[in-house]
Amino acid sequence: MQEIITLAHGSGGKTTGDLIKNIFIKHFNNDILMKNEDAASFILSGRAAFTTDSFVITPVFFKGGNIGKLAVCGTVNDLAAVGAVPLYLGCGFIIEEGLPLKELETIVEAMADTAKEAGVRIVTGDTKVVQKNAADKIFINTSGIGIIPDGIDISGYNAKPGDKVIITGTVGDHGCSILLEREKFDIYADIRSDCAPLNKMVGEVLSKTKDIHVMRDPTRGGVAATLNEIAVQSKVGIKLYEDRIPVNDQVRGLCELLGMDPLYMANEGKMLIIAPEAAINDIMGVLRNTVYGTKSCIIGEVTDEHESRVVMKTVAGGNRIVDMPVGDQLPRIC
Amino acid sequence: MQEIITLAHGSGGKTTGDLIKNIFIKHFNNDILMKNEDAASFILSGRAAFTTDSFVITPVFFKGGNIGKLAVCGTVNDLAAVGAVPLYLGCGFIIEEGLPLKELETIVEAMADTAKEAGVRIVTGDTKVVQKNAADKIFINTSGIGIIPDGIDISGYNAKPGDKVIITGTVGDHGCSILLEREKFDIYADIRSDCAPLNKMVGEVLSKTKDIHVMRDPTRGGVAATLNEIAVQSKVGIKLYEDRIPVNDQVRGLCELLGMDPLYMANEGKMLIIAPEAAINDIMGVLRNTVYGTKSCIIGEVTDEHESRVVMKTVAGGNRIVDMPVGDQLPRIC
Repeated sequence: MQEIITLAHGSGGKTTGDLIKNIFIKHFNNDILMKNEDAASFILSGRAAFTTDSFVITPVFFKGGNIGKLAVCGTVNDLAAVGAVPLYLGCGFIIEEGLPLKELETIVEAMADTAKEAGVRIVTGDTKVVQKNAADKIFINTSGIGIIPDGIDISGYNAKPGDKVIITGTVGDHGCSILLEREKFDIYADIRSDCAPLNKMVGEVLSKTKDIHVMRDPTRGGVAATLNEIAVQSKVGIKLYEDRIPVNDQVRGLCELLGMDPLYMANEGKMLIIAPEAAINDIMGVLRNTVYGTKSCIIGEVTDEHESRVVMKTVAGGNRIVDMPVGDQLPRIC
Repeated sequence: MQEIITLAHGSGGKTTGDLIKNIFIKHFNNDILMKNEDAASFILSGRAAFTTDSFVITPVFFKGGNIGKLAVCGTVNDLAAVGAVPLYLGCGFIIEEGLPLKELETIVEAMADTAKEAGVRIVTGDTKVVQKNAADKIFINTSGIGIIPDGIDISGYNAKPGDKVIITGTVGDHGCSILLEREKFDIYADIRSDCAPLNKMVGEVLSKTKDIHVMRDPTRGGVAATLNEIAVQSKVGIKLYEDRIPVNDQVRGLCELLGMDPLYMANEGKMLIIAPEAAINDIMGVLRNTVYGTKSCIIGEVTDEHESRVVMKTVAGGNRIVDMPVGDQLPRIC
């Protein structure tokens, strides 16, 4: 008989203890977590970065990853986006009664593998179980702590006219992959989520030059929402060139078919980097030699025109406003 | 028409931005959160404590608090339990589509009030919205960071034979209050959750004496589960005296009626403190003058007998083993 998660696994009693030992500690294996105290502890010194993110993606397993890999990447990338070296993660599981233990273990293994790749340790956690239909399979929250090295000042408020805008690869892969998995279109396209931990790539860039003004990973709402946020925070305009935006052919095809725009589709393994022109060659040189940055492109620039707006020069030669999305093209993609 | 949460509130677009501004930033109001970067940042130096907890309690509103107050108390208390001064919280909301905005705001206000009482700042957050029936109203994850002052070494592994066991007040109030709210018994009892932030109480104790071996807040699984954990971690026996365990009369009555044991019922505003006899008078003296510790009692001691077991001397004069619970008396109490 297949073993499944029951309410007892969330009780705080013996069954919870067994789950922690046999699945979480087994895979996340590290000294700090092993201690199993109410809070993890470690020495920390400097400018700390702290972030939290919940993951409610459906389906839980998708091409290129699963909710566990995504949950580690999401928080690692949010730390990397402020220039921090990610160090410690906490994770909170909310599990629907009935989830097969094997599925949980696959998810936890992906978290452990991704944490290892990113060089972070999962040091504290929590597990809650709710009845059937009170949650959708599994939700994972990850929170993370990192340290921002001296000399780094990266912020959504720092974009300056003249800066260039880099995207570290093709846009829309994650959103399109989830869309394909979820909807029963009669379409075959081999689109994988780009879900990846970007901290080592960012670290390599920062060890070459600290002259970066803004970094953000364009997840929900895609490049469009993220650049709009930055334009508002920095009180600048951002100009994009449609013909320079890298889009995977199959993603482009799917989006055209469905009337969607890759600029608004979520990414989970891409970084937007805004930096002064003087630093751009150094940054691009490093990025193109990293595993996740080979397809990096300069897609636009920061201007002192059209403050707080993103405008795209289209392939046809016109200009169109890339607006902040109001709602979702596609809910629950992360 | 009543305003409700829609999927657009979780989209990462304009509607999410409005929610963040009009509810979260409005109430959690602080410089770090206001910056609205991918990760919060602040200077930190020393031995840090880090913890995470998800809250899935049903009902969301109960006598003595709501899920928001509980979510702040839970994480603040976990930090306090290792002797840390809690400083920063992150919170992740998973909201079911259709939740009235007014209810969300009441919950957020309770979080803000409790954070203020505890002296912590909510500096980073995340909001996800899932469709109707994909979650149960609202789940909240809180993660927290604190600093452990020098000279403190509190751990579940530190209990020593001869130590005394203190509970800072009556046991079972939270669990019983939730039980009463949820089940449609035809019973009237005025039982309020004890949900409270305990960090200031703990801070006062620690400023009097650092000679504390173990602290834990006995939440899920109650005093019974928590002491069993400590007995195993410290490889000691723990002896309790039934007649010394403080139980509110109405809690006792309800438990007798339903055949439940207050020792296994969750608490959300109590701390178990295990300390050497020499420090006990100091600790009790401080506790009894704090808001949340007036009913503190010495309920037992650590022994070198019956290793890894908790044994209770009953009112009747016998001894009974207080076992680790296997499952739940009552799921979703936190």
